[in-house]
Amino acid sequence: MHKLKVAVLGATGAVGQRFIQLLEEHPWFVVNEVIGSGRSAGHPYGEITNWVLDGEIPHSIRHLIVKPLDAELESPLVFSALPKEAAAREMELAEAGHIVCTNASLNRMVEDVPLLLPEANADHIRLIDVQRRNRGWKTGAVVANSNCTAMPVVMALAPLRQFGVRRCHMVSAQAISGAGHPGVASLDILDNMIPYIGGEEEKLETEPLKMLGSFVDNHIEWLNSIMGASCNRAPVIDGHLINISVDLATQPSHEAIIDAWDNFRGPYPVGTLPSAPQKPVMYLRHADRPQTRRDRMNGNGMSTSVGRLRLCPLLGYKFVALSHNTIRGAAGCSILNAELLAVEGYISAFDPQRLVTEKLAL
Amino acid sequence: MHKLKVAVLGATGAVGQRFIQLLEEHPWFVVNEVIGSGRSAGHPYGEITNWVLDGEIPHSIRHLIVKPLDAELESPLVFSALPKEAAAREMELAEAGHIVCTNASLNRMVEDVPLLLPEANADHIRLIDVQRRNRGWKTGAVVANSNCTAMPVVMALAPLRQFGVRRCHMVSAQAISGAGHPGVASLDILDNMIPYIGGEEEKLETEPLKMLGSFVDNHIEWLNSIMGASCNRAPVIDGHLINISVDLATQPSHEAIIDAWDNFRGPYPVGTLPSAPQKPVMYLRHADRPQTRRDRMNGNGMSTSVGRLRLCPLLGYKFVALSHNTIRGAAGCSILNAELLAVEGYISAFDPQRLVTEKLAL
Amino acid sequence: MHKLKVAVLGATGAVGQRFIQLLEEHPWFVVNEVIGSGRSAGHPYGEITNWVLDGEIPHSIRHLIVKPLDAELESPLVFSALPKEAAAREMELAEAGHIVCTNASLNRMVEDVPLLLPEANADHIRLIDVQRRNRGWKTGAVVANSNCTAMPVVMALAPLRQFGVRRCHMVSAQAISGAGHPGVASLDILDNMIPYIGGEEEKLETEPLKMLGSFVDNHIEWLNSIMGASCNRAPVIDGHLINISVDLATQPSHEAIIDAWDNFRGPYPVGTLPSAPQKPVMYLRHADRPQTRRDRMNGNGMSTSVGRLRLCPLLGYKFVALSHNTIRGAAGCSILNAELLAVEGYISAFDPQRLVTEKLAL
Amino acid sequence: MHKLKVAVLGATGAVGQRFIQLLEEHPWFVVNEVIGSGRSAGHPYGEITNWVLDGEIPHSIRHLIVKPLDAELESPLVFSALPKEAAAREMELAEAGHIVCTNASLNRMVEDVPLLLPEANADHIRLIDVQRRNRGWKTGAVVANSNCTAMPVVMALAPLRQFGVRRCHMVSAQAISGAGHPGVASLDILDNMIPYIGGEEEKLETEPLKMLGSFVDNHIEWLNSIMGASCNRAPVIDGHLINISVDLATQPSHEAIIDAWDNFRGPYPVGTLPSAPQKPVMYLRHADRPQTRRDRMNGNGMSTSVGRLRLCPLLGYKFVALSHNTIRGAAGCSILNAELLAVEGYISAFDPQRLVTEKLAL
Repeated sequence: MHKLKVAVLGATGAVGQRFIQLLEEHPWFVVNEVIGSGRSAGHPYGEITNWVLDGEIPHSIRHLIVKPLDAELESPLVFSALPKEAAAREMELAEAGHIVCTNASLNRMVEDVPLLLPEANADHIRLIDVQRRNRGWKTGAVVANSNCTAMPVVMALAPLRQFGVRRCHMVSAQAISGAGHPGVASLDILDNMIPYIGGEEEKLETEPLKMLGSFVDNHIEWLNSIMGASCNRAPVIDGHLINISVDLATQPSHEAIIDAWDNFRGPYPVGTLPSAPQKPVMYLRHADRPQTRRDRMNGNGMSTSVGRLRLCPLLGYKFVALSHNTIRGAAGCSILNAELLAVEGYISAFDPQRLVTEKLAL
Repeated sequence: MHKLKVAVLGATGAVGQRFIQLLEEHPWFVVNEVIGSGRSAGHPYGEITNWVLDGEIPHSIRHLIVKPLDAELESPLVFSALPKEAAAREMELAEAGHIVCTNASLNRMVEDVPLLLPEANADHIRLIDVQRRNRGWKTGAVVANSNCTAMPVVMALAPLRQFGVRRCHMVSAQAISGAGHPGVASLDILDNMIPYIGGEEEKLETEPLKMLGSFVDNHIEWLNSIMGASCNRAPVIDGHLINISVDLATQPSHEAIIDAWDNFRGPYPVGTLPSAPQKPVMYLRHADRPQTRRDRMNGNGMSTSVGRLRLCPLLGYKFVALSHNTIRGAAGCSILNAELLAVEGYISAFDPQRLVTEKLAL
Repeated sequence: MHKLKVAVLGATGAVGQRFIQLLEEHPWFVVNEVIGSGRSAGHPYGEITNWVLDGEIPHSIRHLIVKPLDAELESPLVFSALPKEAAAREMELAEAGHIVCTNASLNRMVEDVPLLLPEANADHIRLIDVQRRNRGWKTGAVVANSNCTAMPVVMALAPLRQFGVRRCHMVSAQAISGAGHPGVASLDILDNMIPYIGGEEEKLETEPLKMLGSFVDNHIEWLNSIMGASCNRAPVIDGHLINISVDLATQPSHEAIIDAWDNFRGPYPVGTLPSAPQKPVMYLRHADRPQTRRDRMNGNGMSTSVGRLRLCPLLGYKFVALSHNTIRGAAGCSILNAELLAVEGYISAFDPQRLVTEKLAL
Repeated sequence: MHKLKVAVLGATGAVGQRFIQLLEEHPWFVVNEVIGSGRSAGHPYGEITNWVLDGEIPHSIRHLIVKPLDAELESPLVFSALPKEAAAREMELAEAGHIVCTNASLNRMVEDVPLLLPEANADHIRLIDVQRRNRGWKTGAVVANSNCTAMPVVMALAPLRQFGVRRCHMVSAQAISGAGHPGVASLDILDNMIPYIGGEEEKLETEPLKMLGSFVDNHIEWLNSIMGASCNRAPVIDGHLINISVDLATQPSHEAIIDAWDNFRGPYPVGTLPSAPQKPVMYLRHADRPQTRRDRMNGNGMSTSVGRLRLCPLLGYKFVALSHNTIRGAAGCSILNAELLAVEGYISAFDPQRLVTEKLAL
């Protein structure tokens, strides 16, 4: 059995490049098709792409000819880094039988689309069955990952659900890479903080409620909690840092909370997936951590680092959370989601177990 | 009548330099003595000082010989930029008859020391009478200005006292200049956010309560309110930006709040002082303002800029406040405080009114 | 007599904004017309402009309605911040009788267009007579200022012409504001140096030769010298810093060179113009100066700071030069050029002398 | 046979930390002793060290107790990240029989100390025999690596020696990590360029001449060439970028030069060493590369990236070179040097070949 062929939608943009980079040596998936805008279609990926990540474009991808957005695709699995405006294409591809793991915001809050963060809500995957029934699809599906700032919030709150999350106040300092490329003009952000990111606070106040909700009776029952968010752009390259205050119903001790974070692993088999970090949530005990630059790559960019748990005079508890916004907060999470879909049998014609078995038999 | 001679304690440090710079063309005060650490004492200021502000050391100051900390001073008015450890000297100087306007944290919370921000609490100046009675001083006094992050909070809240400030939640993004020079190592802050500043959150949770309090029965009655603060260091040079959520008892409309800010002037004669900005609080209506670099110099660095007033799902209202931390948040505020003391007659042997009258008569 | 009405072409862009800002309180000129792209035309300047400078849009300009590029203008004097592609309009306006002082690169190397830097080559102004004769114009003219990096080179070399400038090697570290707004993407420049700026090195190797040339026989005789340039973009907001090595024919002493810089004033009446700095070239004696952030505003952004004069093992002498790229290197220089034109009588219907006399008579 | 035990001098500083990090999974060497200043001696490394690199202190090192500088060491191989002032200790350790691979500047220019960069001058290793004879040492030796800015210059010039390097002009933009921690104050470098680094230009004008020289008659015959350097500090974290102009005797074509770089491998067995990059010099063909942030990690931080080869009107050729200053420019180079010493038999009691053979036999 061979690796599963995958396509990347929006492959020439900043998040698309991160997909290409993270998939380069993936044990199960291999990039087979790259899809870009009208301007780039028809050109070799290595020539038309303005690579904005460190290092160089992976050699294996350079020769691939960029396909237009409306091209028929042969890859069963599609990763989407499309901008919101183009993301309607995702539904068409799912209807045509493709599994679409998307980072776009367009379909996140659609009722029968799972907003998946495996360690926090792997069971939401069952919403795919509902989605297929609703839409008469056999093999296709659309699965979304969250906003890059909502992600660390959910990761930090998931282990605390047991204590009853009643209210949550968030203030972010977000990296420029969250706006893509060219994104934020350097004249706007060097030696500056911008206390506004369009549409971001609304996402932060709703997405976590869906993600932390429960799958019951064929739908997601949202978490019953109040969320308030303030979003700021900071002059850092990667990594979203969030000051969080939280009101917990059962008033646990600080050590109980830290234990909940340190021992959090997510349900089986999430921890066994190739892209899963050893520790989804890491509590850092130094007084001045997590720091954006020093901790964003913890767990290969897939862990959420938390620290500074202390008393909040207003809500009870406060702490700091940090995650890499274009790895775990975007491309890396989509890939982890696809891995979960694969082991759970949602990608017909691909069984990672057989891939592994055959490799061992060689 | 001549300008009043002033001394600057800690003149070679970053805040001390800001005093020198702001006093350069002051209409009432002239720098007459500079006091430094043991290392710098005895040397000309222009030679021993590692000037970290823009431009060059003012010519009129270069030749002054730095005096040691224990030197007897001849200047009636003393500005102090001493570090906390050395600030005990301030009380000795006040006892010796000097008016000491200090930026050090040491004496801020001493019960009979006014923590003065003229627009917000000019009447606290009467605590000087209590201080003098308590200590048997005739002409001396110690007057403090607040922490550089507490300042914009107080400035933004002062006009809202009429609505009943019950609870206030603050998350800061603070400039590196707040830590002085050398202060924050560049390796620690470039492309980074540090979610910790030693001792800062405690100051932010207490100083505003004293500053927003009332002078009654010869003491300050603290504001009855709950404050919660999280402090972060950001890679910006000057300007502290704070995301504030606030719970107001009377639930005013947004326009009522904006009017309160825009019309806020502080009591007479504060607005007539040389260093007073035309508008102590400026509400900026663009969705993405205030921004640290673009708005820190509003009102010559003496105004607090606020913006983004909107609903907070948790506390009712949220907004953003910004001020220049080494101008209004430190040296500039001390100078404004001294101006208020002068017009209120607390600096014996100096009457600004006579200075002006004589000038007109020439 | 009233102030002279001026128009600003490309008024909504970054350099256009700098024109607006610098002209705000100009003693001779008043902004009367703002001209923008198709997108902005018809809207009030204050509403359509994304102000990227510090502070806010000057009040007196906000209500001006942006005119389209092809509008007939009533202002005798026109400042142009047009991009190269649109700068053909400048010649049409000159033909229609306007004095056009332009920052665009398009017309700089046209043989009968003076590339004016008043302290260095005020006599090049006489090329206007040639230009008018050549083209049959009576009152119109086009006068250019140089590239923002060529400017400090010329300013530093002009006082050294007496020593015979044979060869000059330049390596720049240029600010992001040189690329306008949005210009350089923050993802491209934060924590980065980019050793390439399209077309810049060619300008740096030719413009100084014209600017340092002599007006003889109705044309500019270029300086006979060899120039080599390497241009780099650095993560700084304003200020171009250049490491210069130079081969001088007469082998002057270092003190002779420093004296030449310190005493350089340019020919009369340049030093008397309102925007002229007291010292066009300032030699800074500290080992680590000039520094970009600390020295770019020297002389209100109109002085060139030089420092670190020392032996170059290859070319004889090396030193560092720095100037503010959007003040003296762009808008500020255009304004100074216009001031020179005014006092030299090239702007018919406007005589600054009468403006001053009438003011005194009031 | 076990891995060779090594000691790290100056282990708690920034370069010392890089040694610890790079040695963490080294196939031949294992960190056995950490030596620090008086302040840190006696404490566990994990507690006393202010870790300034990304991520966390390697677990295997945390428990090691820091030894004082004058401690007797048991490790045959010693890496030194000592400051210049303390580096006299290196000679004592070599006399006591230790192999000392040092990053300190103190001993670099001592006549019988090899200044080793294996790809460029592996044969200089034979200077150890001279050193031992001179000093009567049997097993000890001191081997230095170069200044972090001289390194990329030498790496770029080594393949060009065949064309006759007559003159070389260098202008650097150097990272803050080159100054260690705390090193450069953030107030000094944010939004700033500093055109001065104490002592750096002198090193850059001499070290390459020794490194590019030949081992003849038991000494190093320096390269006969003239070097001129200007050094600048830039607001980047890691990576020194250098604009280089060079005069080559034989006037090769640009393609001949690029081929020389691309095919450069250094003499056998350098390319087989564990830390050797696949390509010591990489020519990047994009017009705007190498860039500091994007190319510093090329070859795991051990390759020198060059680009922009073009005509220099003054010296003939110019190009840009970039290397990671704390990996190849410091700790990484010392480790590569030690690997070369090991395979060349200079470390008695350790034979990497046996280590490998025994591993295969398991």
